[in-house]
Amino acid sequence: MSGSGNLMDFLDEPFPDVGTYEDFHTIDWLREKSRDTDRHRKITSKSKESIWEFIKSLLDAWSGWVVMLLIGLLAGTLAGVIDLAVDWMTDLKEGVCLSAFWYSHEQCCWTSNETTFEDRDKCPLWQKWSELLVNQSEGASAYILNYLMYILWALLFAFLAVSLVRVFAPYACGSGIPEIKTILSGFIIRGYLGKWTLLIKTVTLVLVVSSGLSLGKEGPLVHVACCCGNFFSSLFSKYSKNEGKRREVLSAAAAAGVSVAFGAPIGGVLFSLEEVSYYFPLKTLWRSFFAALVAAFTLRSINPFGNSRLVLFYVEYHTPWYMAELFPFILLGVFGGLWGTLFIRCNIAWCRRRKTTKLGKYPVLEVIAVTAITAIVAYPNPYTRRSTSELISELFNDCGALESSQLCDYINDPNMTRPVDDIPDRPAGVGVYTAMWQLALALIFKIIITIFTFGMKIPSGLFIPSMAVGAMAGRMVGIGVEQLAYHHHDWIIFRNWCRPGADCVTPGLYAMVGAAACLGGVTRMTVSLVVIMFELTGGLEYIVPLMAAAVTSKWVADAFGKEGIYEAHIHLNGYPFLDVKDEFTHRTLATDVMRPRRGEPPLSVLTQDSMTVEDVETLIKETDYNGFPVVVSRDSERLIGFAQRRELILAISVVQALGMHQGQELMELENARQRQEGIVSDSVMYFTEEPPELPANSPQPLKLRRVLNLSPFTVTDHTPMETVVDIFRKLGLRQCLVTRSGRLLGIITKKDVLRHMAQMANQDPESIMFN
Amino acid sequence: MSGSGNLMDFLDEPFPDVGTYEDFHTIDWLREKSRDTDRHRKITSKSKESIWEFIKSLLDAWSGWVVMLLIGLLAGTLAGVIDLAVDWMTDLKEGVCLSAFWYSHEQCCWTSNETTFEDRDKCPLWQKWSELLVNQSEGASAYILNYLMYILWALLFAFLAVSLVRVFAPYACGSGIPEIKTILSGFIIRGYLGKWTLLIKTVTLVLVVSSGLSLGKEGPLVHVACCCGNFFSSLFSKYSKNEGKRREVLSAAAAAGVSVAFGAPIGGVLFSLEEVSYYFPLKTLWRSFFAALVAAFTLRSINPFGNSRLVLFYVEYHTPWYMAELFPFILLGVFGGLWGTLFIRCNIAWCRRRKTTKLGKYPVLEVIAVTAITAIVAYPNPYTRRSTSELISELFNDCGALESSQLCDYINDPNMTRPVDDIPDRPAGVGVYTAMWQLALALIFKIIITIFTFGMKIPSGLFIPSMAVGAMAGRMVGIGVEQLAYHHHDWIIFRNWCRPGADCVTPGLYAMVGAAACLGGVTRMTVSLVVIMFELTGGLEYIVPLMAAAVTSKWVADAFGKEGIYEAHIHLNGYPFLDVKDEFTHRTLATDVMRPRRGEPPLSVLTQDSMTVEDVETLIKETDYNGFPVVVSRDSERLIGFAQRRELILAISVVQALGMHQGQELMELENARQRQEGIVSDSVMYFTEEPPELPANSPQPLKLRRVLNLSPFTVTDHTPMETVVDIFRKLGLRQCLVTRSGRLLGIITKKDVLRHMAQMANQDPESIMFN
Repeated sequence: MSGSGNLMDFLDEPFPDVGTYEDFHTIDWLREKSRDTDRHRKITSKSKESIWEFIKSLLDAWSGWVVMLLIGLLAGTLAGVIDLAVDWMTDLKEGVCLSAFWYSHEQCCWTSNETTFEDRDKCPLWQKWSELLVNQSEGASAYILNYLMYILWALLFAFLAVSLVRVFAPYACGSGIPEIKTILSGFIIRGYLGKWTLLIKTVTLVLVVSSGLSLGKEGPLVHVACCCGNFFSSLFSKYSKNEGKRREVLSAAAAAGVSVAFGAPIGGVLFSLEEVSYYFPLKTLWRSFFAALVAAFTLRSINPFGNSRLVLFYVEYHTPWYMAELFPFILLGVFGGLWGTLFIRCNIAWCRRRKTTKLGKYPVLEVIAVTAITAIVAYPNPYTRRSTSELISELFNDCGALESSQLCDYINDPNMTRPVDDIPDRPAGVGVYTAMWQLALALIFKIIITIFTFGMKIPSGLFIPSMAVGAMAGRMVGIGVEQLAYHHHDWIIFRNWCRPGADCVTPGLYAMVGAAACLGGVTRMTVSLVVIMFELTGGLEYIVPLMAAAVTSKWVADAFGKEGIYEAHIHLNGYPFLDVKDEFTHRTLATDVMRPRRGEPPLSVLTQDSMTVEDVETLIKETDYNGFPVVVSRDSERLIGFAQRRELILAISVVQALGMHQGQELMELENARQRQEGIVSDSVMYFTEEPPELPANSPQPLKLRRVLNLSPFTVTDHTPMETVVDIFRKLGLRQCLVTRSGRLLGIITKKDVLRHMAQMANQDPESIMFN
Repeated sequence: MSGSGNLMDFLDEPFPDVGTYEDFHTIDWLREKSRDTDRHRKITSKSKESIWEFIKSLLDAWSGWVVMLLIGLLAGTLAGVIDLAVDWMTDLKEGVCLSAFWYSHEQCCWTSNETTFEDRDKCPLWQKWSELLVNQSEGASAYILNYLMYILWALLFAFLAVSLVRVFAPYACGSGIPEIKTILSGFIIRGYLGKWTLLIKTVTLVLVVSSGLSLGKEGPLVHVACCCGNFFSSLFSKYSKNEGKRREVLSAAAAAGVSVAFGAPIGGVLFSLEEVSYYFPLKTLWRSFFAALVAAFTLRSINPFGNSRLVLFYVEYHTPWYMAELFPFILLGVFGGLWGTLFIRCNIAWCRRRKTTKLGKYPVLEVIAVTAITAIVAYPNPYTRRSTSELISELFNDCGALESSQLCDYINDPNMTRPVDDIPDRPAGVGVYTAMWQLALALIFKIIITIFTFGMKIPSGLFIPSMAVGAMAGRMVGIGVEQLAYHHHDWIIFRNWCRPGADCVTPGLYAMVGAAACLGGVTRMTVSLVVIMFELTGGLEYIVPLMAAAVTSKWVADAFGKEGIYEAHIHLNGYPFLDVKDEFTHRTLATDVMRPRRGEPPLSVLTQDSMTVEDVETLIKETDYNGFPVVVSRDSERLIGFAQRRELILAISVVQALGMHQGQELMELENARQRQEGIVSDSVMYFTEEPPELPANSPQPLKLRRVLNLSPFTVTDHTPMETVVDIFRKLGLRQCLVTRSGRLLGIITKKDVLRHMAQMANQDPESIMFN
């Protein structure tokens, strides 16, 4: 590998790293990894030279932890700010605080004298819009005025949000998780994790959540955290110059995002591992853990929920669950699976419609229309009027003695005095029956509107809406079982565990199980789902019901289609995502997939010492391949290496006739050219150690060994495609050369693999659009 | 791949799968995977033929879940039985139940009339040995008699255990986790997970835990669960005939093992993922989750702790923790890291001594001696006399009003009446001070004796002893901080959060944090540790302290040496374990590692169509390589494939002069021979599709294409070793061929890679003993 004293030895030094990959292209993981090891070795060997270099090497070693710390701090802070802002703006739709308009309902009433919970609604400083504007708090006209103000605010928020997204950061829309999955699998989408996206997504997220649309902030928070990760990794050359290392940071950032979204640090790490990440070494696990911890800790210090707790929905149940209850839990799992299938099918159909018809041309109008419908339908029903997280929280809660919710309107036995914790099953009162049909209506509405909301040009997550659907269904089932058990405690299924006067059924637990089932049906998460749910709710005793529901939900949903919502959206957008979960079991061989296929012109190759600069220029101009195999000669076709197109261009300064997108490289090329005097179009290019023997009058040859990758990845033509797919997945290759008995036969790129897989699954191979 | 009508076409059919790998050899993951896909394809295509085949294919698809279910059921049952037996036998050391000798102390007193907790010790049916034998319950002679009986029972149990292990199942000793890690990484140790090991390990585990030795049942339970996994996978040909698939089952079984050991299903899955498994596809994650669930559920039905809870140490704390407490938590982390380092160094030094000196020849004596010392020292101290899990449970617990433990002997303010939950910090009473020095003595004893216990020829886990060490240290620190805060609540560090009369410090939480730190220091687990701890204790609010302690502990311990206890033991035993956590950053190339090295004789190769049967027989006899590359000819050296030694032998029936270990193949060889008439020593062997052109009078050639692997894995000689290591790790290769420009240069086996890594880390490469 040492230079041979040639004039052209400067080419043995690496080129500057600017823009190593182009936009919408796939990275080569092995190459990134080996570049990082080179960098690491250089720093290690330098560190012995001086104390300053030693300190620099220490800083380099610790920069990973520093980045994690910064991500955790920023993600936690942003999440806290978003929570506070959403709280205030959601309440702004109903009224305003007289003492300070930037107080939310709860903060406003805390500062007033009535501090107890019961007097909350009577707090005089908080004025509904009707009270403020026409001085009426009751009656039809006040109701209508409040209704109108609610709709107006919602429309205002939604309009602002969609406009901001359209004007400043088109990438800020959606949940971002499908794109982040693709990026983490080694794809480049420039600007997707940029500073503008970060800023606009944070602001618009507050707006859309406050507008009352059926969406959550959890998915977008992952995107926001990844933007933070990208920002901080750009500060350290270790990460900014290496796309592979950068993705390690992004994986950890995704964990931090879920950690603050739910107050579930461990769930976040598992989510990143199971759902989002592609290359997840144990070191990343460990750092993700740290980032998630710092983020959760920061959020706890900001304390947006005012209860010093990390978790979003804190629940304490007082009764264990019983074996017989597994049956309704599994039913809820089936419901979750069906909901997942329905949602994915309808949502994808609608999104495809949006992409292919005129509908997609009016995103602002679409958002306004959906917001208006949501607000109009939601306001009259108390369960859809409030924010979805409040709704979920109420549905999860057990009915204690002090509970004032309509859902807890049971008929108490006046003769019975019991401690607060131990309230027996009781017959349902009027309130519960009212709540039941309101919940049923809310459920139907939520199911329909969520399908149309997810995918609009605004930030939108679907964890919370999915959980709400499940929690509503679950609570209804729970109340049903409870009443059944109360009125028929002599039935054989209840007799063993539910004596009269006992507290045997907890409807809140059913809501929790339903929420897990629905979330699982949509996302197909398994372990991470259960961990998030049980971090979320503190319900440690209830792992088994949650697991049973999650298992059932995944089975049912998988029976109708293997793809979760994120994979479906990746597919819809044609990203080159090689899913680790898909199994490839067809009996094709590498020779069936490689190009050139039978009848196609032969592969464009370079020879090691017989092509001139002009030949190569022509080849580069006429093709758009990312690189070219280098062979000994056209006759023997024995492979010696692979040369990247970009590096070849840099080396021989082919600038004519190249597209504008390579314009940014011009300046560097000028430098390269100045140093390459004596090279003309007829110069022979050689990739060997020593220059070839040439006739006396030939121009100076050009040594290009530096740009030659001497360890290209090869497989034989008889290699089964399942092995090839496995290699592409596990090693993160961009391309792989196919040989037989040492002769080069063809090439397989990631796109070829994906197209072949699509074809084998009877899908349109042309849907894979990027390389 | 289709046959060409040759006489020898029967060779296109696969050989029987018996004993594909030899004992103490490494498997080839890629090959196993592709064999499984073949099998899968065959079943899928057959399933269209008849309904019976369709049902068989369904059964095959579901067999994975069935195996998981069976593993969960058996592992849960065994864990429950072990718990019950340990409970009874531990109490047997102290006394016996008059009504039924098979009752433990608690069961005995439950059946008697005194059912309240306070009267537990007065229960008349339970008789201490002194009461039963000499009718004395108090006094010095009674104490001595009880002491003696305690020691005698302990010695009896330990002697029985070590004898059973020695006679029936030598593999049943130790925790088993290092070996399971090695097996899961693709190594064969026959009998390690066999039925005898299962039986003997279960029985002896009960004996050693009951004997009061300083060891836990958690690690061995993982081994037991893996034995169950191995047993059930042998019932299904899908798993029994494929070493790769079998390891998927074993990974899930390990998760089930931890799940029942701690009642922590999620922690179990993470433990399997982070600590034990090697190849862990997401499908395995999902199945592990199921197995862990079933196992936990089974254990809960058996209900050995009598409290209907899944978790081993259930805790409920009533106070949050405060920022300032992070300082002592981090200190505990440092302690944990130091303990981990000390333990690993001393234990490895002692185990090496045992391996290399005479000490190793007297395992029974060693066990007896250690048991005697343990029993003699442990009895007088109340904190070491009881079982370690009871000790940990007491240390974790918060002091409520009803707590009768010595650790809770605080001086109460008689003027103050408060609810049970809210007990302010109080000055420590005499009991607490007594407990403090007893704990200190117990701590020192536990530290020393555990070092000598782990590694003896009995089943022994070290989760529980490590946790006990941490919990003791933590509780002491906790009580210290509590008293400091009580007596000096005006100090600036306490002023903000600890007013007089408030309940601000929870010593039990410190014990929990200390336990996590010590366990982390020894095993270097991170995420799985925190998840297990918080599933274990139900302390959901306390993730941050646990994480802080785990992070610190790992950092401190890693600073002194990267290896955890399991890696250290793997190393000690010289197993070929390619750790995914080690990073290889040296600048060597494949050419530096491959064999033949410079000066060595050339690589033994086969040619595709010019060697006779006799040549190959000679080659096989003279070498002991696992396989031979096949090249076009000796001149061109272009690689066309790789032939496994075993399959070559089967194909050409070389039976003479082979070692006895291949004897089992003889019968199959007879079959093969009968069908190969006409083949003599001079027959030419060919690996090509068509027979080579031979002179007219030459004997019938032998077609061997069937045994040729046409897609051997190759790298070029310039490939950096870091890439090679990565490929070996990620693809689970056994060997890899090295080429340059299509010419075969050499071979790299897993052993070569491991030896090279050892050399680069300045270790003895000869310590890697197996291939």
